[in-house]
Amino acid sequence: MKCENNVSGYLIRRLIDYGVGHVFGVPGDYILDFYRQLEESPLQLINTSDEQGAGFAADAYARLNGLGVVCVTYCVGGLKIANTTAQAFAEKSPVVVISGAPGLNERRRNPLLHHKIRDFDTQLRIFRQLTVAATDLSETDNGCQEIDRVLAAAVRYKRPVYIELPRDLNASACGPLQTSLPDPPESDGEALGEALDEARRMLGEARQPVAIAGIELQRFGLEKQFLELVEGSGIPFAATALSKGGLSEDHPLYLGVYEGAVGDDSIRRYVEESDCLLLLGAFMTDVNLGIFTADLNRALSISASSEGSAIAFHQYPEVFLADLLHGLLTADLPRRPPASLPGRPASASFIPGDDPVSIKRLFQCLDSFIDSQTTVLADPGEAMFSAADLTICHPAAFLCPAYYTSMGFAVPGAIGAQLARPDLRPLVVTGDGAFQMTGMELATAARFGLTPIVIVLNNRGYGTERPMTDGAFNDIPGWRYSRLPEVFGSGRGYEIRTEKELDRALQEARHNDRELALIEVHLDQDDHSPAFERLTEALGKRVRQSNNTER
Amino acid sequence: MKCENNVSGYLIRRLIDYGVGHVFGVPGDYILDFYRQLEESPLQLINTSDEQGAGFAADAYARLNGLGVVCVTYCVGGLKIANTTAQAFAEKSPVVVISGAPGLNERRRNPLLHHKIRDFDTQLRIFRQLTVAATDLSETDNGCQEIDRVLAAAVRYKRPVYIELPRDLNASACGPLQTSLPDPPESDGEALGEALDEARRMLGEARQPVAIAGIELQRFGLEKQFLELVEGSGIPFAATALSKGGLSEDHPLYLGVYEGAVGDDSIRRYVEESDCLLLLGAFMTDVNLGIFTADLNRALSISASSEGSAIAFHQYPEVFLADLLHGLLTADLPRRPPASLPGRPASASFIPGDDPVSIKRLFQCLDSFIDSQTTVLADPGEAMFSAADLTICHPAAFLCPAYYTSMGFAVPGAIGAQLARPDLRPLVVTGDGAFQMTGMELATAARFGLTPIVIVLNNRGYGTERPMTDGAFNDIPGWRYSRLPEVFGSGRGYEIRTEKELDRALQEARHNDRELALIEVHLDQDDHSPAFERLTEALGKRVRQSNNTER
Repeated sequence: MKCENNVSGYLIRRLIDYGVGHVFGVPGDYILDFYRQLEESPLQLINTSDEQGAGFAADAYARLNGLGVVCVTYCVGGLKIANTTAQAFAEKSPVVVISGAPGLNERRRNPLLHHKIRDFDTQLRIFRQLTVAATDLSETDNGCQEIDRVLAAAVRYKRPVYIELPRDLNASACGPLQTSLPDPPESDGEALGEALDEARRMLGEARQPVAIAGIELQRFGLEKQFLELVEGSGIPFAATALSKGGLSEDHPLYLGVYEGAVGDDSIRRYVEESDCLLLLGAFMTDVNLGIFTADLNRALSISASSEGSAIAFHQYPEVFLADLLHGLLTADLPRRPPASLPGRPASASFIPGDDPVSIKRLFQCLDSFIDSQTTVLADPGEAMFSAADLTICHPAAFLCPAYYTSMGFAVPGAIGAQLARPDLRPLVVTGDGAFQMTGMELATAARFGLTPIVIVLNNRGYGTERPMTDGAFNDIPGWRYSRLPEVFGSGRGYEIRTEKELDRALQEARHNDRELALIEVHLDQDDHSPAFERLTEALGKRVRQSNNTER
Repeated sequence: MKCENNVSGYLIRRLIDYGVGHVFGVPGDYILDFYRQLEESPLQLINTSDEQGAGFAADAYARLNGLGVVCVTYCVGGLKIANTTAQAFAEKSPVVVISGAPGLNERRRNPLLHHKIRDFDTQLRIFRQLTVAATDLSETDNGCQEIDRVLAAAVRYKRPVYIELPRDLNASACGPLQTSLPDPPESDGEALGEALDEARRMLGEARQPVAIAGIELQRFGLEKQFLELVEGSGIPFAATALSKGGLSEDHPLYLGVYEGAVGDDSIRRYVEESDCLLLLGAFMTDVNLGIFTADLNRALSISASSEGSAIAFHQYPEVFLADLLHGLLTADLPRRPPASLPGRPASASFIPGDDPVSIKRLFQCLDSFIDSQTTVLADPGEAMFSAADLTICHPAAFLCPAYYTSMGFAVPGAIGAQLARPDLRPLVVTGDGAFQMTGMELATAARFGLTPIVIVLNNRGYGTERPMTDGAFNDIPGWRYSRLPEVFGSGRGYEIRTEKELDRALQEARHNDRELALIEVHLDQDDHSPAFERLTEALGKRVRQSNNTER
């Protein structure tokens, strides 16, 4: 590959090499020249209403496509996506943040150029906190090598990276260039051998082993190997809240989502009674594991991730997930007889009545509605907790920031999801509070011909907070959500109170596959799903405990 | 004053001491307990749709009230206001950022608590870049002293500060407390004497002295002393784009806004031909001064700010604005005869016709509409540049981020402005691009009984960028803005094409002072104000120059 005319041309070329097809962002004068280059390239530009929407869309795109890109102007653009980049960092989503910046010849004698905060590198210093690799291309003679270093880090760690592009970037800056994509790092051979011996022994002797399928299986494309392993050995497996949907939830060895006291009690008991836990690519986080109510025995666990492994209380920093998984696959583990697994509730077919919609019934209805052409996106809040009860039967079918839990992800996320996977129609489930943060990005979806079905759970406020501490601050203004398609001049709006209305709206939305649908569902303010009630009880207990410690 | 029960109670008490009446934010579980305390306090909580809106509202409130407060949850809340805090830093607006955080007893062994990014102090490290003082109250035994240190810095420097409040904050942390508000720093007496001698001599000998009234006059409440100085000495004065409206624009000594080639040419010549420039509290920024087209002679200038002073090419780091201004006031400067000033265009009364509205005519109409009960808020873009031609005749009547130029400020800013100054009705002038970022905060305004009149300049995209570099990325979806009041269930919407329609809508909005008004004005995509045409020419030249250097 030869260096494209200039550094920014080379950046575009490498993004395409990595399989990127779309770039999300909002233009601004420090990045305008690069936008023109993007428009003339094979990449499609998707400009959102606000940078926040672009950040979330790029995150969802990265989760499904393997790399996502958000491209903004200096400071007034870049700092608006500090939060979405933090989410990508926390949940391991490989997002490339590209920011324009003042040209080098504009910076002489430190003038107060517009958008500048404290120093010219203030934004760079902030993004160093939020990324695994960051570069200011004004500080190097080797812009193209820097681009390769930073993109490789995004793919290696599945975390965001940052590239700052001064607008007068010098064309002559290219050094010797990569001609291929970098290889993943390899485990230390001897350490891997020892870890495999131990793991094989523990799994062989275990009476009730359980595998936990973590989010990294999806991020690194290891789902198939994981299924081979559990199918070959007959080990049952659970997902976490964050990894839900990465593996088919109708698999005969699938237990369900393990999330401590928040999840189903029979799954919890089966997992916690296991005498050998195989945690593969899982985050051990609080919401993910039911706010500290998880009770897993480290002495009995084998844990592997892209950042290193551990067995019981000792660590193997140089043994990585992919190699351990591959090693176990070829280790000839004994095949166990079918275990007697806790029964999962069957997906009941939904027969709508004339009753007002309850959260429980809403999600039963959605469970019977989703099919192999659906991607579900759930926002933190009741939508996320209830969505845990949906049965997701194909990969790439569930996106939810279950660890970082930033509200407002789902609507802009649906833009990224449908562009990454045009064969799947997004079903967004969001609370009214989360929708008010970013829901107007539906106009962006409509502009680019996307067709999400959006369910707004209207319980008139921050329903997840009321049981913890209530006050007027949990109320929000009552938008008439179903009128928004009239504002967009596109899409269909529905205002729903009963089950029959809900059913009809969903059927109509399914048939009308050329337009987005916005389905506002009125819910009782005191109505909660069983999963959520378990969670708030656990959370409330935690807040009370910490208050007691204080006084 | 005695310490309120606990550190957070003390914080509330001190905010009230500093004259704060309202707190802006969005609740979340790490800050929920503090929200309950706020609700029980005399402070009024204003919760916005998204944190970004709260950040901008607090900034506007701070500019008018002297201190503003935004209060959010950890990371998912805090990082959403990185950009609004950067704006407050860049434009010297004293905003107190309060963020919740995990309790100390939750952090043991570094668990992955929800919302956590990299380390527990990631957010703190980011806000150190964006504030003049930042504190994590978990790291001190002296929470109350820390609160006083940080609040004093906000008021001293008129810049944002950051307070991180772990939710299990220990009550026993109060040390000896401040009983009064801190004094401003004093200049070094001898240095001040020397600087005053020089300044007096230069001003005395000058044939055509000009004073530039900067934004710090407003921030530090020095408008009255400034007027005394120029009235006593007969020195004419100009404003900058950022300080416009701080002093009455119908003052007989007022020249207009000086902004290099962007501004009025006769003002520019008068200022640049001056043989003694007295710059008081002015930022020398690019947009503020017409994108490098300003041509001021440093050898002939006296410049004073809250951070130090300079005369010609030598500096007085220990001489501060307030003292220099006070010294000049008592220096008995000779009173000059009335100078012959360049004529300012008279505010023509607006007689509406049947023509489509042009930008020029729109702002003529607004100029005749605004009165002593109006605060104008302008978003960056055509709204900001055109608004420069409005004649603002009383202080607190014009808010615009003319240096940092972050889009989306004006609508949420109007919430802060009307709460800080309930006697003034906000008139928001915003482009369609900026409105799509934060305009839905109008629902928040309606909820709290506020009544802004919002003019959306609908030219179907980023009109300020088209003359620089055009492409589909400058297009935005066509919302039907005037339908939004139907979505809010409150307010009146207008869709305007002709001057007569515009005039009628404004009159109706003035009479209907119990509801907000949203007035969408259709504009020709190629229509620009004279000020904006001068600016884009200057900007375009700059981009071309930097491209030429590159190739």
